[in-house]
Order: sequence, then structure tokens, then C-alpha cells
Amino acid sequence: MNYCSHCGASGPVLEIPEGDNRPRFICKSCDTIHYSNPNIVAGCLPIWGDKVLLCRRAIPPREGYWNVPSGYLENGESVEEGAIREVWEEAEAKVTIRGVHSLYSLPHINQIYIHFLADLEDGQYGVGPESSETQLFSEEEIPWQEIAFTSSVFTLKKFFADRQEGQQNTHLGVYDYPKKDPSK
Amino acid sequence: MNYCSHCGASGPVLEIPEGDNRPRFICKSCDTIHYSNPNIVAGCLPIWGDKVLLCRRAIPPREGYWNVPSGYLENGESVEEGAIREVWEEAEAKVTIRGVHSLYSLPHINQIYIHFLADLEDGQYGVGPESSETQLFSEEEIPWQEIAFTSSVFTLKKFFADRQEGQQNTHLGVYDYPKKDPSK
Repeated sequence: MNYCSHCGASGPVLEIPEGDNRPRFICKSCDTIHYSNPNIVAGCLPIWGDKVLLCRRAIPPREGYWNVPSGYLENGESVEEGAIREVWEEAEAKVTIRGVHSLYSLPHINQIYIHFLADLEDGQYGVGPESSETQLFSEEEIPWQEIAFTSSVFTLKKFFADRQEGQQNTHLGVYDYPKKDPSK
Repeated sequence: MNYCSHCGASGPVLEIPEGDNRPRFICKSCDTIHYSNPNIVAGCLPIWGDKVLLCRRAIPPREGYWNVPSGYLENGESVEEGAIREVWEEAEAKVTIRGVHSLYSLPHINQIYIHFLADLEDGQYGVGPESSETQLFSEEEIPWQEIAFTSSVFTLKKFFADRQEGQQNTHLGVYDYPKKDPSK
């Protein structure tokens, strides 16, 4: 943040506001405190028979890799609405949500993935503008080495493990990123 | 947004960027697109025996009303970490998370509540700086007319209903706000 979005003054400074315990960008001209918080990435794992629908990404990051259809939740949406919209935008498929499947946090990049399990309504799907290809995969066909993000690997592995056990659970995961050694 | 936080130019305009389908604030000077997305409010319903722990709010909004300990998720946290931190900050209590209890969306104010069920670790609790009082309540003692937010009413009602059935489920809710009549 180079300028205050409220008054236009240059150089908001990173300081801990009075009564707070974390540094925020504070404008020294108009006293506005600028908060920044994690974003939600919402999506569904669409199910059809014994297969699941994945999208091959046509855009960075991880262009060319396969993903559970997901994207940033937008203002004015419920989490379910956002997740259903993303499946439509990326795979031109209509889904009915079964329930929450996974919450997967990536604290180092301030993202929280929320994946639902959902049923394809009619088995129909297409290729949205941000995908280069979409495909139904059985467990044996999943291209594990070409999955875009760890959030999708987590969701897929938990789904197949639950199915094996005849269960449907809600799973919590955190990306285990390499921590900086504070002594170096 | 009055000024671009990147270059300081006045009057970013609300327009749909190329390749997008929603209006965003765009700076006509440096072309920066400023995104705004929903925030997560994370918290836990702390359980001790047949009682749950609520906090009476010492700050607006809804000062003086009772709430499930919750607050904005911060950058650098997992959802679980944020929820545990909020219980500590508001009720000086340590908890162990059982699982996700509810996702409750408030699309009209761009908030998503994520409430976990959690066990008080030692039955100890205090009064954090944003609370005026904290108390363990049995179902019969819940002050239903003095609950701060609909997200907490939702979480409490689902918890007691599940307990009655001997279940522990994950619940989806959306605040049913009065929609504007587009013809008026």
C-alpha cells in the first residue's frame, strides 16, 4: 500500500493501532486503518457415478494442471452460491451440493479453500473460458502428478478414503509450508 | 475507494475489467484493479459438560448482547488457529476443536462465519478485553432474546438439535435478509 485509498496521502505506515495487537497500514493524515484479511476460494468436487469432474487450467498459476473447480468467493454471495458458480464458469456443469467436504488453509498466502461435495445434476459438462479441458475421472484415472494445488490433492484423497469407508466427513487441513528458520 | 492505493491517483472507477464479469475499482492512471472479497469470521462454540460458553459483548456492534466467541480471521492464520485465538481473546479459555459445526453466510455484508465445536480443555475461563462477562449456559439457560447475531442463534440451535439426536453434523446457513424490490 503506497497511498491511502481514503484521502490519497502517501505512505500509510505499518503500525499496531491502539487497542489492537497486530500491525495494520495506518494513514497518518486521515487516521484510516486499512485491514487486510484472508480470502476464501470456494469450489465443489462434482460427482457422477463413480467418477469426479476435474478441470485442466487454461490460465496461470499452474496452467495445464488439473484442478477441482474453485475460485475466489465474491462479495454478495453465500459460500454455496460461489462454489456452484465456479463449477458453472469452469466446467459448464450444474451441481447440487451434498455438504461441506473440506476446509484447507494456506496461511502463508492468506487463502482458505472451502470445497463442497456435489452431484452433477444431469451428467452434462463443458469447457469454461478458464479451462482448456474437463474430464470425469475414476479413482484409478486421477492424474496425481498433474494436480494443480495441494488443496485439490487433499480434497481428492479424503473423498476416496471416505468412499472406501462408506462415509462422508468434513475434513480440516493446513498446507505444511517450509517455515523460515528465525536464527538465519 | 477515493484514491488508488498503488499510485495515489484520484477516482478509481467501478467498471468490469476485460475478461471479467463483475465491476471492480480500476485505476485509470496505473491500471491497477482493486478487488474486494468477503471476510471470514472464525469462532468456536466451547463445550463443558452439558453447557456452552458465551461472551457478553463489551464493544459495538450489539454491545451488551451474548455471542459465540468469534472474530475476523487474520492473515497468516489457519481457520482453526483463528477460531482458537478468538476464544482465548474473548473468553481467556483454551479449547480443543472437535470439528466444523457451521458455515453461515451473510451475503449482504460480505461475511462468512465459520464456527467449530470445541471442548474447553480444563473448564477454566475468564473475561477478555472485548467482553464484559462470560458464562457457561445449559440449553434451558440460553438468553435467546439477547443473542448478538443470527450466526450465533443458528449455531446454538443446530448444536442443541444435533445433541438431542446424538449427532454431530456440519450445517450450512444463509442469513435471510429483506431483499430490495427492484421495481421500487
